[in-house]
Order: sequence, then structure tokens, then C-alpha cells
Amino acid sequence: MSQTAKTRVLTGITTTGTPHLGNYVGAIKPAIEASQDPNVQSFYFLADYHALIKCQDPKRVQESRLEIAATWLALGLDTDNAIFYRQSDIIEIPELMWMLSCVCAKGLMNRAHAYKAAVAENEEAGNQDPDKGVTMGLFGYPVLMAADILMFNANKVPVGRDQIQHIEMARDMAGRFNHLFKGQYFVQPEAVVDEKVEVLKGLDGRKMSKSYNNTIPLFVSEKKLQKLVRKIKTNSLEPGEPKDPDTCTLFQIFSAFASESEALAMRQQYAEGIGWGEAKDRVFEYVNAHLSAPRERYNALMEDPAHIEAVLQKGAERAREEAAVTMDRLRAAVGLGRFV
Amino acid sequence: MSQTAKTRVLTGITTTGTPHLGNYVGAIKPAIEASQDPNVQSFYFLADYHALIKCQDPKRVQESRLEIAATWLALGLDTDNAIFYRQSDIIEIPELMWMLSCVCAKGLMNRAHAYKAAVAENEEAGNQDPDKGVTMGLFGYPVLMAADILMFNANKVPVGRDQIQHIEMARDMAGRFNHLFKGQYFVQPEAVVDEKVEVLKGLDGRKMSKSYNNTIPLFVSEKKLQKLVRKIKTNSLEPGEPKDPDTCTLFQIFSAFASESEALAMRQQYAEGIGWGEAKDRVFEYVNAHLSAPRERYNALMEDPAHIEAVLQKGAERAREEAAVTMDRLRAAVGLGRFV
Repeated sequence: MSQTAKTRVLTGITTTGTPHLGNYVGAIKPAIEASQDPNVQSFYFLADYHALIKCQDPKRVQESRLEIAATWLALGLDTDNAIFYRQSDIIEIPELMWMLSCVCAKGLMNRAHAYKAAVAENEEAGNQDPDKGVTMGLFGYPVLMAADILMFNANKVPVGRDQIQHIEMARDMAGRFNHLFKGQYFVQPEAVVDEKVEVLKGLDGRKMSKSYNNTIPLFVSEKKLQKLVRKIKTNSLEPGEPKDPDTCTLFQIFSAFASESEALAMRQQYAEGIGWGEAKDRVFEYVNAHLSAPRERYNALMEDPAHIEAVLQKGAERAREEAAVTMDRLRAAVGLGRFV
Repeated sequence: MSQTAKTRVLTGITTTGTPHLGNYVGAIKPAIEASQDPNVQSFYFLADYHALIKCQDPKRVQESRLEIAATWLALGLDTDNAIFYRQSDIIEIPELMWMLSCVCAKGLMNRAHAYKAAVAENEEAGNQDPDKGVTMGLFGYPVLMAADILMFNANKVPVGRDQIQHIEMARDMAGRFNHLFKGQYFVQPEAVVDEKVEVLKGLDGRKMSKSYNNTIPLFVSEKKLQKLVRKIKTNSLEPGEPKDPDTCTLFQIFSAFASESEALAMRQQYAEGIGWGEAKDRVFEYVNAHLSAPRERYNALMEDPAHIEAVLQKGAERAREEAAVTMDRLRAAVGLGRFV
């Protein structure tokens, strides 16, 4: 293992959507900040093999990968420090997935949340076949996730609560492989759950999510951003009436960008009865001011896919250098080494 | 697809055992003969990824791969004509497996023979968990087999009866992928079942098989071969009493090597009451004469793993040249192509 002493933190980004404010606040911003920690070696990857599980629209997968890469770069991801790569450029990952499949009990996958949810849905719908619509990709993707993590001996994997199980599964496979092949081949990864992670609300007040069609994309035009901010659902309180910032989507978006003192000042405005129209204008202007420089970078990047490709190739080279060493070791461990 | 007009025939060889006379008669001899057909492009591969499903002994996998490669080469496989490679050298195969996993219904695997047999065994043993001892490798290996076949657009896959289902599954995945991604990406492979395939009996009269521990390894020493032939189970008929060649393991082994007229002459000897001792000597001498030249080549090859490695690398190069073109096309089809 070509391990540095630094803690290794690995984050995958699924490539089926267009980054929105909710992604920024909940995932991108904290991740980019974390990557600046000098004690950490960060790995960020576009999880495009995973995208194939749910998306059979090649154009969508292709666009989403480009948009997400451009977003992270525009927002200042330091790719000299962090290793930023596209999963599908690391062809060793599916190979490791196969090796792990051979030590992973099927029973483990039977208990995976995503699979169980699909079965429950089929049962509710009265489908005779509980596996209706379930592909081997959906059933087995925790093994792919384990390969993503174990390939780089990640120590920590920041995840949401619903993903803790996957990290436990990766630990299980790591332990089983180490045991069967009598060596310390894999580090046991740990899930890191940020309890404070902010779930941003969308236009309609529900969680901002592609599936609810209530998102504010991160890098829409200024005009479109204004239009969307104006569409955010508020209540019917009149100007002059005091308003509650803590239940207000608008305030939540504002404070995701604002400093503490700025947020405090806005709270004061709410207490003093700022009108919704004015509040929306203030939030738009504030957010827009923060996004205009990265938006310009984003637009420039989107028009230069060759540059993005080059950045990702550089990341893939760094990642594959490690993967090659790891896989040589693993192939020898299981009996697949070369004869000389 | 870099397709030639020739029919493509693909054969995988599982690498967990030492080749024995049964393998030779049932599989190796007909395969090497078939590879000489000028209208056929043959692919032979050491199925070492598959070996990991059942064998966690790296030394056994490693040795078996070497022994099998040496056996096929010693018996005259023409590696200029046939493409002879090691599965694990084609790193694109697990990647294709993942792509196929995302279009393969889990329900299809639920119905796979090997999996169903494992479940039935657990149920018979009264195990609470029907999936006890079943790994994701065992459960999903028909998808790996589909990747083996579809990667090279094989038209025909010679298989035993028990394997027909796997070819049907590969056809299913090929059709589903073609349909979802709107193109003729894959050829539909056909199973070729040789009804006449000979199942050689072992020392104890049951089918010769590693699992029965009743095999005659193909390239044991002359002395050991003689000893094993003498151990073949016969009946208690005395010299002078007529004997039935058609129920006799000894005769079966003899006729696998003999010409028709030689077999006829031996039948005559049986009718005339040849003694078992004499018959065993005759069979040993005959088989030994046929095996001594390949045995010498085999022993020389086993002492020159670097040569075998070079032959396999040459085969892998040819195979990967094709795999690279296929995978580029498939990556573009699903949305995983490069940005420029």
C-alpha cells in the first residue's frame, strides 16, 4: 500500500443531475472546505459507473458529469491537493469489485436498504415478483461502493445517515478478504456522519431535490436566478408583520451563504417585518453576488471540455498509479499474478 | 466491432484443477481439433476470475493456470491461429460485467442453476438462511460469463447441457442492452452442445472428476501412469472368459486415443477373453506412447513459465486490441465517453 501518513477521505458524487443550491450547501461547500485541511488527503470522484444503475439516458449521464466537474472546479476545488477523478477512468475498480464479490455474502446484499426498499415497493404495489425492476446493478452496487473505498484505503467516508450501512458492508468485505487471504490488504473505512449537515428546502418548501423538481440550479443565469428566488414559497404575512426566519426557506438559503453577523442582521429584518418582496430581492442580490464569480468560471469551463478532460486525466493518472500498486498486490494475494 | 467474417467460437477453461484424461477426451482434444478449422476464429481463455468463486487457495489457482496453459500448448494448440489468453489479463471484462449488471434483471440470476442448487442444498440441510455460503460471486457469475462472451461477439459457445442456460442469459443481456441503448452493440451468441461428447469414467468407474478424486492426470510420469492404469476398476472375469468392452473404463480410455481399426482389434481381444492384467498393460503402453511426446513438451513448458507468460501476453494483446475498440463504443453508448 502506497499510503501516506495523512488521513484519507473519499467522496463520490453521483452523476445524474445538475448541481443545485441544495447540493452546494449540503455537500459541495463542506467538501471543498474539508479538502483544504493539510492533514487530509482527499479523493473526490465522479461516480459515473453508479449513474448507470438508474440512468439509461447517455446524454444525461454525459452532461451531468461535465456539469458536476465544472461546478467543483469553478467553486475552487484544489486539484493539486485533492485527487479528483472520474470513476470510469479507473478501470481497476470493477476488477476489484469482482474480487470483493467473491468474498461478499449474498445475504449481506439481501439486507441493503436500497434493495429492500425496492422489494417493499413491489410488495405494496401487489407485484408477484418482489424483484421486479431490480437489476443486478441495483442489487450489487454496495460491492462497487466497497471497491471505490477500499481501492484507495480510505480512512473516512463522509456520508448521510442512509449510507452508513454501505460503509459497514465495505468493512465487512475488507475484513473477510484480509482474513481469507491472510494479510492486511485493506484498511477498515469509517463512516463520518455530519449531524449538522444542512438540508436545504426547495421552491415548494420540501427538501430541495431533483426528484421533487423544486431545485434552484447553482449556475443558472442571473435573470433566471432572480426568477427562481421570487418563486420560493413564503406565507401570507404582510410587510410590517414580524416573520419567523427559522421556518423560512428564503432565510435558510441566505444564511447558507452569509456570515454569522450578516445572518443576525437579516434575522433582525425579519423581526422588524421586512416584506417578502424586499426579502426576496435582498436574498437574490446577496446570493447572486456570491455566485457571479464562480458562475463566470463555470461558464468558461463548460465551454472548454478539453480543459476539464485534462484535469480529470491528471487526477486519473494519480489515482491509477495507486490502483496499479494495490491491484498487483491483490492479484498476487488471490492467485492471479503473472507467472514471472 | 472489429469483426472478421469468420465464425467466432469462444471456450473458457476453469482454472482450479490439474488436467486429466477426462478433460482431454471430453474437452481439450475436440477443442484443439476445432481450432484448426480455417472458417473459425477461436478464442480460448483461462477463466481465472471464475476460479475465485470456489477457490480461495491462491497457490492452487496459480498452479492450475500454469498447468492448464502448459497442457494446451503441449497438445498443439495453434496460438497463431486461435486467440489464447488469460481472462484476468483482459481488465475490460469486469468493466463490461458492470455495464451488463445494470441491464440484467436480478430475477434472471434467481433462476440460475448453480444458485438454485446451492439454495436447495441449504434447504435440505435445514439451514435457516437459504443463501448460506452463497457469495455475490457465485450469484452473479452468469453476468461475468456474459461479459466473457459478448466482449468478443462470439457466435458460438461450445458448452455442456448444464451451461445452455448461461448462454440464454447472455443472449438476454445482449438483447436488453441493444434495445436500451438503441444499437446493434452485441451479437447474440449460440450455445453449441455436442451430444456425442464423451464422458470418460474414472478409476472407480464413476465419471472422471476432480471432485470424485478418481482422475488420471494427463501428464503424470510414465511410472505413475502405469500404476494408475493398473488401479482402474475391472470385474472378476478370468483370462479366457469373453469380456464386454462397452461397459469397461479401460476400453473407453483406450478407444479415446485409438483409431477405429485399433479399437475394433481390441474389441476382438475382449471377445477372445484377454486377461485384465494383459489388457491393462496394452492400454498403458498405447496411451503412454501417445502421451510421451506431449508429456515431454509439457514438462519443458512447466520449467519455462516465462515462455508461457509471453505466449499469454501475446494472446492478451490481441484480445485487448478488440476489447479496447468494443469498450470505447460501449462507453460512448451509455454516456461514459471522454469529453473530447
